[in-house]
Amino acid sequence: MERLFVVKIGGNVIDDAEATGRFLALFAGLPGRKILVHGGGKVATQMAARLGVQTQMVEGRRITDAAMLEVVTMVYGGLVNKTLVARLQANGCNAVGLTGADAGSILARKREGWAVDYGYAGDIVRVNAEVLQRLLEGQFVPVFAPLTADAAGQLLNTNADTMAAELALALASAYRVSLVYCFEKKGVLADPADDNSAIPHISFEQYGSLKAEGVVSKGMIPKLDNAFAALRGGVAEVFICQAEALRSLADGHDLSGTRLTFA
Amino acid sequence: MERLFVVKIGGNVIDDAEATGRFLALFAGLPGRKILVHGGGKVATQMAARLGVQTQMVEGRRITDAAMLEVVTMVYGGLVNKTLVARLQANGCNAVGLTGADAGSILARKREGWAVDYGYAGDIVRVNAEVLQRLLEGQFVPVFAPLTADAAGQLLNTNADTMAAELALALASAYRVSLVYCFEKKGVLADPADDNSAIPHISFEQYGSLKAEGVVSKGMIPKLDNAFAALRGGVAEVFICQAEALRSLADGHDLSGTRLTFA
Repeated sequence: MERLFVVKIGGNVIDDAEATGRFLALFAGLPGRKILVHGGGKVATQMAARLGVQTQMVEGRRITDAAMLEVVTMVYGGLVNKTLVARLQANGCNAVGLTGADAGSILARKREGWAVDYGYAGDIVRVNAEVLQRLLEGQFVPVFAPLTADAAGQLLNTNADTMAAELALALASAYRVSLVYCFEKKGVLADPADDNSAIPHISFEQYGSLKAEGVVSKGMIPKLDNAFAALRGGVAEVFICQAEALRSLADGHDLSGTRLTFA
Repeated sequence: MERLFVVKIGGNVIDDAEATGRFLALFAGLPGRKILVHGGGKVATQMAARLGVQTQMVEGRRITDAAMLEVVTMVYGGLVNKTLVARLQANGCNAVGLTGADAGSILARKREGWAVDYGYAGDIVRVNAEVLQRLLEGQFVPVFAPLTADAAGQLLNTNADTMAAELALALASAYRVSLVYCFEKKGVLADPADDNSAIPHISFEQYGSLKAEGVVSKGMIPKLDNAFAALRGGVAEVFICQAEALRSLADGHDLSGTRLTFA
């Protein structure tokens, strides 16, 4: 089975032009099929402030009213996505920027029935694996902004970590998928105070113990829950690492950082 | 030869949600292969004002400094493009939003050596007809924002009328191309004071006379120059009309408005 990398890059890296440049060169160098999913929350928060639109977060999730939807559509779908696409193209990577609306690639619905009203927040209903395979086999590299739309054409703000996991899952029967979450730490840390304490490997069973022992921090739990859901669904492996660690994957070596597998 | 519609929709229509809805339903109903190119200048000017970025125009062209480039990247590439794509998908049209950077579809270079420094303004160097044909044959409907990038990955603001003409030209050897410019008037007017005086047909020779007689107004000349350059290059016909006139094209009838042909 051919390998596919689904790489999620967080907003902290995107915020730093030099770090972004290093990341994009490494991503462009990854061999074979690949998909990039990016965030952009920090840029959106800054742009919202400039426009006098207030940012409200509940448990790390953005409340997306109509004014904020306009901001994230501009920032994620326009500023961040097109900047990344143009720079990837200059790196010889045939990027095509997408939201879930484009090519009908991801259908979502507005989040309803939660205790908190998140506004125009989208939960993914279905990934169109067929259209993504066609793009991948056509030598395109999809670059996803964390936006989707519902069947009526309403744009929705969508969590980028979840989007990456859902894309990985949907393509797991066609490719041997490596899902890679790049963030600011070197991996899942055994000691949060020690940046060099990344745990090299965690299985689902070990994850249960780490949660019970309180080793895994609060902010990491949704990311790891997403990761193990993807593994349970057939994704081959999940990496949690720094952007720089992509170098080892491009070289064909195992990467520094944390590797998650189901068993 | 199969027919291809390349439709340009101006900023005035996009500014009006109801008119946009009517236009998108008509565009979605056009049979066969099609490409949409949109503007968005009015929305960009409004967003720039909200962000304290000054809009400067010289002879109808926007001066695009770094701050304005950020605005147009957000507005054209994000807000307008993704709103149109999501609504087209809801109309059963398999839209995929693109800039010239996406899929390496259009290469441009920064405008240099003009008397006026237009900043990050892009002149089109080459349309990648092969990649567009692959998308069209794959049943996708490209929706272009008026943005391109140069070979170094620098995003550039690009005139939407010119982009539509260049796309039509590049695809004229593969399809029988109808280039359609939708704008607020019913066509090229014989009497600017009479909205119902659209000239049904203009050849290149007649265009010369109309210019000499001063019938063609100043703002219309660049549009018509673009149109006749496209016709000279092999585009079958150019229509200049209101968005509503697409209905007649979808029905297979000739459209109300002005039809331009070379001979």
